[in-house]
Amino acid sequence: MNAYQIILKKREGKKINKQEIEFLLGGYVKGWIADYQMAAFLMAVYFQGMSDEELTEFTEVMAHSGEIINLSSIAGVKVDKHSTGGVGDKTTLVLAPLAAAAGIPVAKMSGRGLGHTGGTIDKLRALEGFEVHLSREEFIDRVLDNGLCIVGQTDNLVPADKQLYALRDVTATVDSIPLIASSIMSKKYASGTDALVLDVKMGAGAFMKTLSEAQDLAESMVRIGTRLGVKTAAFITDMNQPLGRTVGNALEMKEVLLTLRGEGPLDLTNLCLKLGSCMLVLGGKEDHLELAEARLKEILYSGRALEKFISFVKKQGGSIQGIEDVELLPRAGMIQDFKAQTEGFVQEVDAFKVGMAAMTLGAGREKKEDKIDLAVGVELFKKIGERVKKGETLFRIHSNSEKKFEAAIELLKEALVISVDEPLIPPLIYDYITGE
Amino acid sequence: MNAYQIILKKREGKKINKQEIEFLLGGYVKGWIADYQMAAFLMAVYFQGMSDEELTEFTEVMAHSGEIINLSSIAGVKVDKHSTGGVGDKTTLVLAPLAAAAGIPVAKMSGRGLGHTGGTIDKLRALEGFEVHLSREEFIDRVLDNGLCIVGQTDNLVPADKQLYALRDVTATVDSIPLIASSIMSKKYASGTDALVLDVKMGAGAFMKTLSEAQDLAESMVRIGTRLGVKTAAFITDMNQPLGRTVGNALEMKEVLLTLRGEGPLDLTNLCLKLGSCMLVLGGKEDHLELAEARLKEILYSGRALEKFISFVKKQGGSIQGIEDVELLPRAGMIQDFKAQTEGFVQEVDAFKVGMAAMTLGAGREKKEDKIDLAVGVELFKKIGERVKKGETLFRIHSNSEKKFEAAIELLKEALVISVDEPLIPPLIYDYITGE
Repeated sequence: MNAYQIILKKREGKKINKQEIEFLLGGYVKGWIADYQMAAFLMAVYFQGMSDEELTEFTEVMAHSGEIINLSSIAGVKVDKHSTGGVGDKTTLVLAPLAAAAGIPVAKMSGRGLGHTGGTIDKLRALEGFEVHLSREEFIDRVLDNGLCIVGQTDNLVPADKQLYALRDVTATVDSIPLIASSIMSKKYASGTDALVLDVKMGAGAFMKTLSEAQDLAESMVRIGTRLGVKTAAFITDMNQPLGRTVGNALEMKEVLLTLRGEGPLDLTNLCLKLGSCMLVLGGKEDHLELAEARLKEILYSGRALEKFISFVKKQGGSIQGIEDVELLPRAGMIQDFKAQTEGFVQEVDAFKVGMAAMTLGAGREKKEDKIDLAVGVELFKKIGERVKKGETLFRIHSNSEKKFEAAIELLKEALVISVDEPLIPPLIYDYITGE
Repeated sequence: MNAYQIILKKREGKKINKQEIEFLLGGYVKGWIADYQMAAFLMAVYFQGMSDEELTEFTEVMAHSGEIINLSSIAGVKVDKHSTGGVGDKTTLVLAPLAAAAGIPVAKMSGRGLGHTGGTIDKLRALEGFEVHLSREEFIDRVLDNGLCIVGQTDNLVPADKQLYALRDVTATVDSIPLIASSIMSKKYASGTDALVLDVKMGAGAFMKTLSEAQDLAESMVRIGTRLGVKTAAFITDMNQPLGRTVGNALEMKEVLLTLRGEGPLDLTNLCLKLGSCMLVLGGKEDHLELAEARLKEILYSGRALEKFISFVKKQGGSIQGIEDVELLPRAGMIQDFKAQTEGFVQEVDAFKVGMAAMTLGAGREKKEDKIDLAVGVELFKKIGERVKKGETLFRIHSNSEKKFEAAIELLKEALVISVDEPLIPPLIYDYITGE
């Protein structure tokens, strides 16, 4: 067996077996298979794809390149949720306490944001003192104690994926469905979850631009999960415009708190209820999505999800001052509104451009090493289908730099399209895919 | 412009322009574009191909990575010949003096053999003292003086190709028609020839196994040559069985001398006449292939090609003792015949297996660094279609090692198939492709 033969097989569209996958990935991680051979293999995968069997084995071998977290000491069905990344996507911060309050043990490892999309860990850091690095024991103890813990992914979670991703990033092999699917699913498998709800974002601000791409990815991940013994379901949800009305870490935390108080934007609230009901069904807490949703609504509007969130923050060392008084969350030095010059209906709030504007302000990272500014970001006063009068505020921009403010404004002007016709409002959920 | 964008464009099947090709190849040769990016690009080329325009530019930029030899001081149309490599292919050694004797200036740079195929330079070294490394001036002087000179390719001839080939060799991207075509044509373009006759080998012992692959390669090279201003024509010729009846350097030299005396095997003699007539037509010495062939026959059978060969060898410092008495050429210590156990007709003499047997004996190189044994090799007493009686010699094996002899015998036993039916004899020439 050698790397050349494996590349050749894949190039010819033949199936590679588990021994070959172990040889290739193992050799690559150990450094005796070179980057250039892996690059050729990845490009061959881009063109030839992988069968479900290959992909499942590939995912499993990737996962085993590092630690496989053992959550067996936590009773009940552990259910995780994963989003493929979007703009204004603060779902986890509402959903995790909601599901935990309903009795689902939530032991979540979360990544950091990159590019125009944000990450849960960054948003949590808007709460002073919140600790995202816990030992495995502390992590499990928190879940045993409170039913909920969220930590950052450690370097030992699927190290093969980190290496592969860095290579894909410079060899134009990032946007390959099997490579995306195995990257995500290997991390979820390694994190020890029993069940998984996937939120596959679709549209301008998502990595998947079309419904059919998003469906391919969702179906592929559901099949991998199912084969690996992880009960998996996927929603395909809209990311043409940002989710909710805030983009930027402290601003999103504010919106999370509003939503946990039952006063959040409709799209965010509904999405959390839908994803949450699926978590309850997969976790065996309810048989039907409708019943699960009713139960979650009751939990949300009675304030029990907020209570769970508060105890969760406390147990991870975070200050609850910002929760009690959102004015105490990080605040930018410069807050300025951008007002409408014309009237009409909002046709478009391009999520990618809004995400780029937020990144430009310093809310996100262009490169992994970049530091982020928790206070900055954008509030959206208008979303698709809403009527706009001349002089009304369209965006409120939170910045700590005049120069970045100017750059962000340019992007935001392009993001928002107003015209006289009443537009079709994109649905929140396009599709729902289960393994059964 | 960056490497990522160029890989992406090629992956998407888009055309890359000359600036991008220069950036990519230039950066790669200079070392600031990494092997892994080039590997991904090459695999994308494998799947997406290249347009004639791209491929011509790619070839030209490759050629300009090193020295472009200037043959303008030599009057007349310089015509080169290139074979894609075969077993027993000693054509150049007959053809070059034949064409030179007909007045075509032949300034030839030749590569070394690799794998199961042999190289001209190795065969020439069977003549003691023959010098294959000459300065540019000496090279041109020999052509001016005698109309013929053959030297080894220098390291500065298309260095980009050497680097690319080494990478293709470990990333399963060797057998890509555009990459093969640009590799060959860049070297021919850099060697300064005005016209070129290509001998594209097809069959078991060739890199191209099927007629349609061979045609694709031949047509691609003819189009590149024509676009680069090199008058190019291609023959597709048989390499299912070895050419002639000897494989191994000194043995092939012996057969070359026999052929130059007009007593060579029919296939080799005919191929040299066909390729040679094309050289005469491209070189403007004759208008029609038939007339050219008649002229070459006259030159061959009158001994003028042999005379040219002798003066050529002398001028490059080679001993002509081996020419005058072939028994003085390098001789192996062990010469043994392999005889027929059955009777019938020869159905197959698998050129690849015979080539592998010769390589096993030490006549060829498995790796670039390997040393070769000039004396060893195989004589074929029977070729396809010939009748075999029990006890007749099929092969004569020349070896310097008992162990290698045994290994070669095993391969040769598999190479030759005898059965009762009279087989179809493969044609010598399958196709002829010109740029007009």
